[in-house]
Amino acid sequence: MTTMSSALSPAPAATGARAGEHAHHLLERSRALVRPALAEAIARLHPWVGEIAAYSLGWCEPGGAPLAAPAGGKGLRQALAVLGAEAAGAPRSAGVTAAVAVELVHTFSLLHDDIMDGDPTRRGRPTVWKAYGTGPAVLAGDALFALAVETLAATPGTDIPSAVRHLSTALNDLVRGQADDLLFESRPWTGPEAVRPDEYRAMAEHKTGALLGCATALGAVLAGAPRETVAALDRAGRHLGVAFQVVDDLLGVWGDPAVTGKPVHADLLRGKKTFPVLAALGTPAARPLARLLNSAGPLDAADARRAAALIEDAGGREAATAEARRHIAAVDACLDGLPSTTGTTCTTRSTPRAHNPRSTAGTRSTDDLRALLDFLVRREM
Amino acid sequence: MTTMSSALSPAPAATGARAGEHAHHLLERSRALVRPALAEAIARLHPWVGEIAAYSLGWCEPGGAPLAAPAGGKGLRQALAVLGAEAAGAPRSAGVTAAVAVELVHTFSLLHDDIMDGDPTRRGRPTVWKAYGTGPAVLAGDALFALAVETLAATPGTDIPSAVRHLSTALNDLVRGQADDLLFESRPWTGPEAVRPDEYRAMAEHKTGALLGCATALGAVLAGAPRETVAALDRAGRHLGVAFQVVDDLLGVWGDPAVTGKPVHADLLRGKKTFPVLAALGTPAARPLARLLNSAGPLDAADARRAAALIEDAGGREAATAEARRHIAAVDACLDGLPSTTGTTCTTRSTPRAHNPRSTAGTRSTDDLRALLDFLVRREM
Repeated sequence: MTTMSSALSPAPAATGARAGEHAHHLLERSRALVRPALAEAIARLHPWVGEIAAYSLGWCEPGGAPLAAPAGGKGLRQALAVLGAEAAGAPRSAGVTAAVAVELVHTFSLLHDDIMDGDPTRRGRPTVWKAYGTGPAVLAGDALFALAVETLAATPGTDIPSAVRHLSTALNDLVRGQADDLLFESRPWTGPEAVRPDEYRAMAEHKTGALLGCATALGAVLAGAPRETVAALDRAGRHLGVAFQVVDDLLGVWGDPAVTGKPVHADLLRGKKTFPVLAALGTPAARPLARLLNSAGPLDAADARRAAALIEDAGGREAATAEARRHIAAVDACLDGLPSTTGTTCTTRSTPRAHNPRSTAGTRSTDDLRALLDFLVRREM
Repeated sequence: MTTMSSALSPAPAATGARAGEHAHHLLERSRALVRPALAEAIARLHPWVGEIAAYSLGWCEPGGAPLAAPAGGKGLRQALAVLGAEAAGAPRSAGVTAAVAVELVHTFSLLHDDIMDGDPTRRGRPTVWKAYGTGPAVLAGDALFALAVETLAATPGTDIPSAVRHLSTALNDLVRGQADDLLFESRPWTGPEAVRPDEYRAMAEHKTGALLGCATALGAVLAGAPRETVAALDRAGRHLGVAFQVVDDLLGVWGDPAVTGKPVHADLLRGKKTFPVLAALGTPAARPLARLLNSAGPLDAADARRAAALIEDAGGREAATAEARRHIAAVDACLDGLPSTTGTTCTTRSTPRAHNPRSTAGTRSTDDLRALLDFLVRREM
């Protein structure tokens, strides 16, 4: 678990603690709401593939024995789906369906990303390809992807074509972002072929933001919410994703390894094109940094320490902090437009009793969504 | 290219040659019809991912240089989609959309299967994971899968929910079949844990038949054809798949390696649970075969020769031939029901002029579909 407080100014301790409690409650409530439907979907898989899926969700050991303490993630995307649907005045069932689809896609993408990146561990456990082999990890990922599409397409009374389009757009963006991230590694630091900050933003929005945007908007899409509501929710998630990525970059250089769980300066040692470096290289003060990065061979630990200081001297840390703040403000701006447009025009044909335009449910849910997003971008990821 | 004629009685030479010419014409016509839409879909991908996709379709070298002679497959699935749609009286556009979606899914499944099976070559060229690396091969497969879903979901005037459900059912079946095929490898030859012929049939239907069934029926689904028409087309493709798989097994033991392109007795040497072996083991005459297969360690070439003879003695070759014939007859039976139900009730909302119930197009197209399927199951794969 990594915290944003080292990168961005933290909220006062008491407010922060209350906000944290509320956010954790929202995450827990969403997980409890979604878990039965998610388990039911996983149970439809081939038993062996289902076991691999359950392992990757942190529900069991390799072999299928249940874990004493479940080791899954916080369920951020499923919470965004549930709260996004509620904020749009959509019925709870639409939020749960969206949450299941998005959680399946997220799990699929972790499975395949860990193969692509060769990562041996995730959340302190062997990754799926390490525990079960590359072939089974590829296959289980494919199965989860297909199951996500099937889940959306099998929900009666919802706008299935729009939902499937929304999900497949997010998936295409995700692949696009992953491809750019891989290709950035072989691009030079300087010159006309260098990665520009706007290319970085597009990569981060695609790789991290697209699925968060999809999560936040999908319940509203399923329920036939107005186009502007869907667009605002989607944009909020996408800005959240870019903010996450930039803060991750900041923590990668200046974060406390004991808190981030990553080795110190790992991104610099790997030559990763992170935002602070790209922003620094765009300034005249960055000549010594450019010389250091362009020197032959990978950086050693002393080089990386020197690079971190040079990036800060050239304004890279400040620029990245400002960039993250801009995207956080954009998340807020997207949510600001929500209450007046929600709870009024969802056209879902199912469980209409769950949707009462005159209730305050839409507004309260927008507050919940805002509380979770605020907490996420200000406190911890 | 492998032929069925060594396994099943061939058609008389002259009839066979004419049927072959007609089938090749049908395949070529479908490829020409589908290619522009397929190229347009691939062009929507990230350029690097699009290049990997084009390589895997046999359109270019690694790096993107066009091939002098394209090295793609025959385009069986796209032809089934085009002819299946025509047989159901669906507009041509539905057939083309179905063909693009199915070809994308087929290409995705080859990409990922080659990783799972560790196969270094396909159609005489390095497989994608060999040419580009495992990570990019996983990513490109995912992109093709997402593009297939997007293609279906972006086609106005069609029954998108049914089409997406149909495709995701096929994909789930495909994963299920692939998982069973992998698990069969570690099951014993005899005893209560042995693979039963009905388990084999289900595996073959899922692994090979599901996508062929989806291909044959998907155009009709998009066009809103009657449920019975869709079911008959889907069943025809599924029986075709099981017939293919059983004949592949027959050729793996008794085929001419010069024709099949596979090393002699490769399946026996790998200990693969093929239909002829499973059928033979179910007979009282199979004791010596069971002893041989149950002996410690993998078979050598002499063992494999002896096993082939024992399988034939125990009736495995005959049983497999009968099994393939049964599925071929079932394909015919599925098509027999078609003409009277097609061309009358497609509810597609697009290009209605392409759909004329009083024309003979439906009947002629059923003849074309039958001609292609007949040729495929009787002559060559």
